[in-house]
Order: sequence, then structure tokens, then C-alpha cells
Amino acid sequence: MQGSDDRIEDETDLVQTYLAPLAAGAPGAFGLRDDAALISPEPGTGIVVSSDPIIAGVHFFAGDAAADFAWKALAVNASDMAAKGATPFGYILTLALPEAPTRDWMQSFSAGLRQAQESFGCHLLGGDTDRTPGPLTIGVTMMGSVPAGKFVPRHSARSGDHVFVTGTIGDAALGLALRKIPAAFDDVLSEEQRAFALGRYLRPRPRIGLAEALRNHASAALDVSDGLLKDLRRLAGGSGMSLELGSVPVSSAVSAALTHDENLASLVLAGGDDYEILAAVPPNAVAGFKQGAEEAGIAVTRLGILEEGSPLEVRDLNGRFLDLQRLGYDHFA
Amino acid sequence: MQGSDDRIEDETDLVQTYLAPLAAGAPGAFGLRDDAALISPEPGTGIVVSSDPIIAGVHFFAGDAAADFAWKALAVNASDMAAKGATPFGYILTLALPEAPTRDWMQSFSAGLRQAQESFGCHLLGGDTDRTPGPLTIGVTMMGSVPAGKFVPRHSARSGDHVFVTGTIGDAALGLALRKIPAAFDDVLSEEQRAFALGRYLRPRPRIGLAEALRNHASAALDVSDGLLKDLRRLAGGSGMSLELGSVPVSSAVSAALTHDENLASLVLAGGDDYEILAAVPPNAVAGFKQGAEEAGIAVTRLGILEEGSPLEVRDLNGRFLDLQRLGYDHFA
Repeated sequence: MQGSDDRIEDETDLVQTYLAPLAAGAPGAFGLRDDAALISPEPGTGIVVSSDPIIAGVHFFAGDAAADFAWKALAVNASDMAAKGATPFGYILTLALPEAPTRDWMQSFSAGLRQAQESFGCHLLGGDTDRTPGPLTIGVTMMGSVPAGKFVPRHSARSGDHVFVTGTIGDAALGLALRKIPAAFDDVLSEEQRAFALGRYLRPRPRIGLAEALRNHASAALDVSDGLLKDLRRLAGGSGMSLELGSVPVSSAVSAALTHDENLASLVLAGGDDYEILAAVPPNAVAGFKQGAEEAGIAVTRLGILEEGSPLEVRDLNGRFLDLQRLGYDHFA
Repeated sequence: MQGSDDRIEDETDLVQTYLAPLAAGAPGAFGLRDDAALISPEPGTGIVVSSDPIIAGVHFFAGDAAADFAWKALAVNASDMAAKGATPFGYILTLALPEAPTRDWMQSFSAGLRQAQESFGCHLLGGDTDRTPGPLTIGVTMMGSVPAGKFVPRHSARSGDHVFVTGTIGDAALGLALRKIPAAFDDVLSEEQRAFALGRYLRPRPRIGLAEALRNHASAALDVSDGLLKDLRRLAGGSGMSLELGSVPVSSAVSAALTHDENLASLVLAGGDDYEILAAVPPNAVAGFKQGAEEAGIAVTRLGILEEGSPLEVRDLNGRFLDLQRLGYDHFA
């Protein structure tokens, strides 16, 4: 009998023991025994595809639990699906491993994948494992379905559209700050607030449930992965918007941090990894969008209205304009 | 004006200057300006997906021309498409770069991608670029189309099926040996033979043209990427076959090497990276398969007939049985 800390040298063992169970229920995955997967799309369905790999030391801490970064690898890609109005159904996984993994590690890693795929509604369809002289690299290519003509682009917002954001912003950046300096905000945040922010960084929850409201009502959308201002600028395209920092939805944790030090506005304006969704909604679709979000149980907050020919401006909590260029946000093209 | 050896620090510049032109002609790629790609499958079409990343120092020599390993990154995946009877139409590219690339490098890399995608008939659809503390890693997820019900599985060969292989076997392994020891076979191979073997390693040519014959006539197929015996064992499943080394098609280069040293049979039996195709064809489909291959201009050679309950046996050039277990081939499950 093999112990739980021995290493899995054989690729077939690794794939069939730990990964193939994640493909059960997807006939086109062929039990991960073929060289490719087969997708049989329903007529009238578009397939949405995106791929964001995550790399140890770049996108996650190598010492984290494998279940956590396995979750994250799927979450960051499922978030793109949701923002495009698509429903994820499957993913291709490519693992570049710096050493043969232990059974404990693969157990944790595959458990994280299972939690994520059950939460997001998708299956493992295929992939590849390799050894690498570099850091652990987890490649995920996710696929989702969208009714024909309902894909939600990034760049089709129009002047006059209302801009909404889901959930709260800045939590993951606060969580990352706490990971880097565990003693930070010791006298500012409660234990619960700390745990909340750390959890938002470690296990982002993509807004899968918003896909239907987006494809029915939004003119454009993207997920907030690179920071609110950067992603807002992408969404706005040629238009601008007047954003009040006070109107950005924040958690009690981020609110406490902001009250402590208003320079922490950067958490809200430039912090990444929240995996909330920014959407542009035409005026006559606002009511339907809000109702759809409510039915999905997802809080949405209106940030402003896009105006052609206007700049992107931000007022701080005291109503003063922030100098975005001086703060470096102007380069976030 | 920027010189050709300055480095591209800006991701948008890199993507829009060097990669977006490769997406022209694919409307669902949105000029690489969205977070995801959209595929709109024809009714009655299945989508075949596979992903084999290549890593510097593992799958290619880091010092090779970027155009060459860019070609290889697409070729190894297009080979899987062909083996499954699918016609490649697009790919997702994820680049993990150890440093900001120079313009020269990106020019060469994108030129290699263009040569490959024009040769294989596909477009760049989307992807991602990241920095990595590790080696250059090129992730490709390729997608192809196959008429519904025509996917060619790996594991559905039947006893009595004839086994065919395309092209010649062992060339890439010989090329790799020449890369590692340039002075090898100095008095055995002509300059042309050396160049041929090196080219087969550096720029594999997937058998795209065989896809139609495979889906119309083969019961099972896979590409020869991990070595003939290993892949033959996968194809044979529960059956066996008697293989004569002399019946394996080889180039004049490999033939010269074998004549020089018959231990080089390992080039033919275990050398990888040929990206030829092994196919099982039912007896009543053999004529059609051969005709289809001929029409595609692809040489195919019959290796033997699968027999249920028989072992996989190999006879050397003198008719003697090779001891596969002693040679280590038995572990190639």
C-alpha cells in the first residue's frame, strides 16, 4: 500500500487516479484516455473560450494549499465566462509540475478543482501534464456556452449607458496586503474582517449567476481582474465617466481600512483580483438588469453614466478630484 | 523610432503589434481586444479540443529560432487534430515569458506562428501573456471541427483491424540525437540526410491532410508523439500485433544509421516527436483508406494486423524477436 506522501512518478497514475474522476459526466472527455476532447454544441449555441494560466510566485503563493490555487485557477477563467454572458461547461487543464507531486498534494489539488467545477457547473475535459524546470504553472482553457448573438463584448458600451459593478471592490487587494504583511492593520480590522479579505483573495467567487442578466440587458461587460480604474477605462472606450470614490461599493473591511488611511483608496481604484463584473447597461435596460441581478442574488451598484467626450474623473471621499495622472492611473490603458 | 532589439514592456503593444494580425480573418477573436473568443459552430459539427504546451529546455532548445518553436507549438497540437479526423480552425495562445521579449524575437515568433497557421488552416483566437520566473512556456489549446459522429477515438480499434502508419519513423529522434551530439554519425550520414533529420525534429509537419481519410475509414487513430511502440500499444488496446522492424517505414537517413548500428532500432521503436499518425483500419475499409491517403498525397505503410489475445511482438531486421521487457519498452503503457 502506498503512503500519502510518496510521489507519483507515473503520469497515467496521476491522471487516472486524481484527474479522470473530474471528467466523469462529460462524455466528450473520454475518461481522459484520448488525445483530445470532443464538444458537441447544441444548435444555436456559441462557444466562448478563454485562457488565463496562473503561475506559482506570480499569481499565487507557492506555499498555499493546493486546493486553494486549484480553485483560483478555475475561478479566474469562470469569471471571464460570466462577464461574457456565458455558462461554463468545461475546461482543459495543463499542469507544468516542478517535481513529481505527492499523493497528498494531488488529493488537495483535485479536491479544489472539484469544489470549483461543482460550484461553477463545469467538467474537466482534457489536458496534459509536464515537468518543468520552472515554477508550478496551471493552465486552464475554459469553455462556456452562450445563445447565438448573446455574447457580451468588452468594447460595445455606448454613451449614456449606466455602469454597474457587482459585489464589493478592493477586498482581494486588502487580502493580498495582509498576506504580504500579516501584522498590517492590526488595530484597524477585526478578526472577521481580516478573514473575509484573506478569503476574497484566496478563493475568488466568480459571478456565474449574473451571466443571464448580462446577456439579456448589458451592452458591454468585463470582469474586474486588473483593478477598477483600469478595467473601467477599458469598458468606457471612447467615453468618460465621473466616478465618486464614495459610490464604489466596499466591504466593512475595506471601509475600515479607508477610514484609517485614505491613501488606501488605491485598494479600491487599482487593486486587482476581485473578479467582480463591470457592466454597461443602456438606460432602457437598467430596470431589467437590476431585476435580473436581484433574482440571481447578486448585489449590483451603479457607479455612473458614460459620457462621450468626457474624461474619466474620480472624486475622493471629500469630493476632491483625484489627480489620476499623478497617481499613475493614467497609464492604465 | 524604436530599434529592433529594444524590449517590449507593454503587453498591449506586444499583443496588438505582433499577435493581433494573426487573428485577422477570425471574427470571434475580436482583434484580441476582448477577454474571450467566440466560436460559432456550424450545425452538425463537433469541436475537437486539445492542449500540449511546450517548455524551453524540455520540448525545445531555448536557443533555437523563435520561428521554429512557434511552429512546433502549433504543429504538435495540429497533429492531434489530424489524428482525430478534425480540421483545425483556431487556437488559444498563452505565453509565459521569462523577460520582456525583443522586437526581433517577437517578429520571429509571430512569423513562425503565421507560417504554421497558414499551413494548418487556423487562426489565433485569443490567449494571455504573463511573466514567469521560469523558462519560456508556450501554451496552445487548439480547436478543430469534425462532422458529428466522425471523431476518431484512440481506443476503439478492433481485432482484425489493419494498422497503418504515415510517412517515416525515427527521423525526429535522429535529429534530436544530432542536436545533442553534432558530430554523431559524421561518416554515416550525408549532409542532406543530416539536414533532413534535423528539419524533421525542428519543424514537424502534422498530417493535416489525412483527417478526411481517417474519419471516413479508420476505427481508431493517434499521432506518434511518444514513440512508435508506446503509441502502438495504446492503439492496440487489448489486442496484440506482430511487428517486423523491417516493415516500419524509414527515411534514407534512419536507414543509414540503422545499417551502421542496429542498436539504433530504438530510434524507430521508441523515438518520439515524429508526429506521424498510427491508424487502425477495418479490413473492408483498407482500400478506401489507402485511396484517401493517396489522394491526400500522404504515404501510408501497413505495419500489421491486430489480433486479440496476442502479445505485441517485434522482430528485428534479422527476424529475431526483440526482448521488449529487457529493452524497457514493456513499461511504455
